[in-house]
Amino acid sequence: MSSNPDLHNYKLLIVYDGTNYCGWQVQPNGLSIQQVVQEKASLILRQPILITGSGRTDAGVHAKGQAAHFQLPRALDLYRFLGSLNALLPSDIRVLEAKEVPMNFHARYSATGKIYHYHLHLDYIENPFTRLYCWRIKEKMDLAAFKKAATCFIGSHDFTSLSNDSHSGCAANDPVRTVQRLDIIEQPQGLRLEFEANGFLYKMVRNITGTLVDVGLGKFAAEQMPLILAARDRKKAGRAAPPQGLFLMHVHYPNL
Amino acid sequence: MSSNPDLHNYKLLIVYDGTNYCGWQVQPNGLSIQQVVQEKASLILRQPILITGSGRTDAGVHAKGQAAHFQLPRALDLYRFLGSLNALLPSDIRVLEAKEVPMNFHARYSATGKIYHYHLHLDYIENPFTRLYCWRIKEKMDLAAFKKAATCFIGSHDFTSLSNDSHSGCAANDPVRTVQRLDIIEQPQGLRLEFEANGFLYKMVRNITGTLVDVGLGKFAAEQMPLILAARDRKKAGRAAPPQGLFLMHVHYPNL
Repeated sequence: MSSNPDLHNYKLLIVYDGTNYCGWQVQPNGLSIQQVVQEKASLILRQPILITGSGRTDAGVHAKGQAAHFQLPRALDLYRFLGSLNALLPSDIRVLEAKEVPMNFHARYSATGKIYHYHLHLDYIENPFTRLYCWRIKEKMDLAAFKKAATCFIGSHDFTSLSNDSHSGCAANDPVRTVQRLDIIEQPQGLRLEFEANGFLYKMVRNITGTLVDVGLGKFAAEQMPLILAARDRKKAGRAAPPQGLFLMHVHYPNL
Repeated sequence: MSSNPDLHNYKLLIVYDGTNYCGWQVQPNGLSIQQVVQEKASLILRQPILITGSGRTDAGVHAKGQAAHFQLPRALDLYRFLGSLNALLPSDIRVLEAKEVPMNFHARYSATGKIYHYHLHLDYIENPFTRLYCWRIKEKMDLAAFKKAATCFIGSHDFTSLSNDSHSGCAANDPVRTVQRLDIIEQPQGLRLEFEANGFLYKMVRNITGTLVDVGLGKFAAEQMPLILAARDRKKAGRAAPPQGLFLMHVHYPNL
């Protein structure tokens, strides 16, 4: 048996407003982004195709740089494919880029890191224009404590306390991740948290963000963060931040 | 008959995402912003009240600075009223400010000018995050012609050609308006048009914007703009820009 010489591998760069979806991954109940992209691409290509993402995003979570791949036993006119796909997709999903990649490229297993942003809106009154893209905190936060606590999550740590690993499975295998960057960017109406790591456990960004907000509101001291990490127990950390503030910004692939 | 000495007049500053509404003004079919604010305020105040806006905005049009007023035969604890009102309002409508104003203040008749912004998104591919707040133009535009044409609308003109006056009534009385400012602000992904005038005829901002886009796409020359104004005929101008790019930003009131 030889491999198909006409088999091609294509990578997609996908942006979506996750508000109206049950998340990236196909689910028995609810419409997922993966399902919509697969169905429209299969229609255009006139054969059922399977699209594999870099990882799932939960219901209500957004992406400005989700990556995915699919294989096809023929060569594609990528410019025409991209135009047809965007014409069929609903306006809250767009494919920005489609390109051929080596056969050994895999959107999930080839990824060496990801960037997520989380948006906090700090105001007494909700903003109708950012309500679907931010978590609004109306109480006054201690920003110095918030920033001090954030530094505790930078570096290589066992993030079991900050993940909901019963949903992930992989946390049990190796719950150590390396956070290269956790920047807190002050903006006119809130904060943007920029997370960069070699990988993230399930709900890790939302659990870290929720715990940092709990520090800002005085429910934890910044000094407790190392103890929370050491406990390896989700119940020791703070709440999960809601999904609508989270954006998958970029997936790193070496040599691509 | 003497006037009620306990009658008070209150001004509201209202922001809304107009996506899910039939516009500001109460309509027989469809939910309006005016109706929602009136119903929630009436509930809190335990009496039916009528809220008068500075003017209507159409279905899908947004506001970051709509003004309105209502009268009440008693004094209000404005801080508590504002908190209760925002707690009852849906998250796409917020009242930013409530304050007492002189009895002769009228949100529509006391207004001496308004600022509208119109957002154009210039890109080949739609952006899922701005699709409800911009008009996307995918074709390449001649920006020099666009900007040159825009200058023709600054100053005092009879704007009959740029208004749908059958819906307004007032255009027939006096269709002259003074545009003090029509700035074209270049942004990373498009243009922001800033209109400031002593008043606007019905659909005037959307008709001017649509006509400018038609100039940018080569359907009109910039030099035709004075002829379009002189014709006093809506059919001579270009199309209307769609509602979702339009924002009512501010209503001017002297001495307030």
